[in-house]
Amino acid sequence: MTRAELFSQIKKKSSFLCVGLDADIAKIPAHLKTEKDPIYSFCKAVIEETADYAVAYKPNIAFFEALGPQGWETLQKVLEIIPQEIFTIADAKRGDIGNTSKLYAKAFFEKMDFDSVTVAPYMGADSVTPFLEFADKWVILLALTSNIGSMDFQLIKDENGKPLYQTVLEKSQDWGTPENLMYVVGATRGELIAEVRQAVPDHFFLVPGVGAQGGSLDEVAKYGMNSSCGLLVNSSRGIIYASGERDFAKAARNEAEKLQKEMKVLLDRHL
Amino acid sequence: MTRAELFSQIKKKSSFLCVGLDADIAKIPAHLKTEKDPIYSFCKAVIEETADYAVAYKPNIAFFEALGPQGWETLQKVLEIIPQEIFTIADAKRGDIGNTSKLYAKAFFEKMDFDSVTVAPYMGADSVTPFLEFADKWVILLALTSNIGSMDFQLIKDENGKPLYQTVLEKSQDWGTPENLMYVVGATRGELIAEVRQAVPDHFFLVPGVGAQGGSLDEVAKYGMNSSCGLLVNSSRGIIYASGERDFAKAARNEAEKLQKEMKVLLDRHL
Repeated sequence: MTRAELFSQIKKKSSFLCVGLDADIAKIPAHLKTEKDPIYSFCKAVIEETADYAVAYKPNIAFFEALGPQGWETLQKVLEIIPQEIFTIADAKRGDIGNTSKLYAKAFFEKMDFDSVTVAPYMGADSVTPFLEFADKWVILLALTSNIGSMDFQLIKDENGKPLYQTVLEKSQDWGTPENLMYVVGATRGELIAEVRQAVPDHFFLVPGVGAQGGSLDEVAKYGMNSSCGLLVNSSRGIIYASGERDFAKAARNEAEKLQKEMKVLLDRHL
Repeated sequence: MTRAELFSQIKKKSSFLCVGLDADIAKIPAHLKTEKDPIYSFCKAVIEETADYAVAYKPNIAFFEALGPQGWETLQKVLEIIPQEIFTIADAKRGDIGNTSKLYAKAFFEKMDFDSVTVAPYMGADSVTPFLEFADKWVILLALTSNIGSMDFQLIKDENGKPLYQTVLEKSQDWGTPENLMYVVGATRGELIAEVRQAVPDHFFLVPGVGAQGGSLDEVAKYGMNSSCGLLVNSSRGIIYASGERDFAKAARNEAEKLQKEMKVLLDRHL
């Protein structure tokens, strides 16, 4: 998917919502567990009810990988029922030396047909660029994550006072463009989102941490939005586990709709 | 597997060789391609012929993941034929927020029965520690890798002049012990291996980059060996693709034996 197509969908739906599919067999409603493929049934119902409000879906690969080979079959089936115009993110945090990263890229871009994959930067250029060689496919590079551990390394300042995440932003400008490279930018600290936006004005951000992790949608939009929106804000648990009962899909729809309504206000305000 | 069991095997075999199973469907001998599961047949033959000389096997997960669900079936079958006393490494470079890392750990330690998994440090403590909660299982944390891109971030010096990889070593001392935490330390620069060994005297290192990538086994032993050996030196392509013909397994055996003989000399010299 191209950046223009993504922006066009954002405008059409008045939404920059990404629904995170962290489909946990231990958390899905009990009545689904007798189905042949409970995780598929769960994801299918969530997708059907939220597709009007979401511009992206983000399956969390660990949740499928933990189910063994069957989990990868399920992931493939889930990917296939996501409507074509919706952006898909393999949240996989991959990254290895060149020829190995190329195979991870093939796994997500060719064997499956994801639009993007999340990639970890620690191993540097040759671990990231193999993912950038596929037409209309995207890397979403970890820059500043929303977890506590983000403070261990990402905020370390170098000899010139520049934090590591800023160096990741800077160096990766040579690897990709706003047409094929996004960044993971956590929502938990507004002033840091502003700093990232200043460093990379045109790139999209995938923003986790709104809701459950305490980030504010208003702040994210205030500090992070650009003229092409430039944001995909993810919500996982707040939507997919809004209810643990038979009405889970309807409850997911309601939560997605609520977020989309807030997003519409913010798009009208900032665009 | 415990550290004592690993060291005992190293002494018994006079070897600290890890054979990397980067089993590429495009590179295996042509005659295998008519087999029902060519990658399995390839790995099985390599394992049978090298098991006398190897103390560890390291399947490169990308190569299996790129084959889709069938690849995970193959990986499981390959893991099951590795002799019980040999250490197994899922070279997966995983790492994500806490509950997600826990699921990756379950995938490799419970769903499959690997002894260890390689983990990327960028997301910090809570992305690594979930892997350390499994008895007799190991994290092999990326510290200083052997690829060109390792220079992009791993060598960046902080305000006190300390390079990032040293901070990774330092902080991770609080997360694990020499009994459940190893480090990836590339073989390409002897003086850096010495610096890592000084920072973490007791931990095992998984050392890629000997052979094809230019590292010297002598230097690795000189600068990296400790009183429990403390080294697993990996060779992938140099062994498994020593021949591309019908004699590939025999050729792999010869290469593994050659490395083991060199390792015996080094163990006798340094231990």
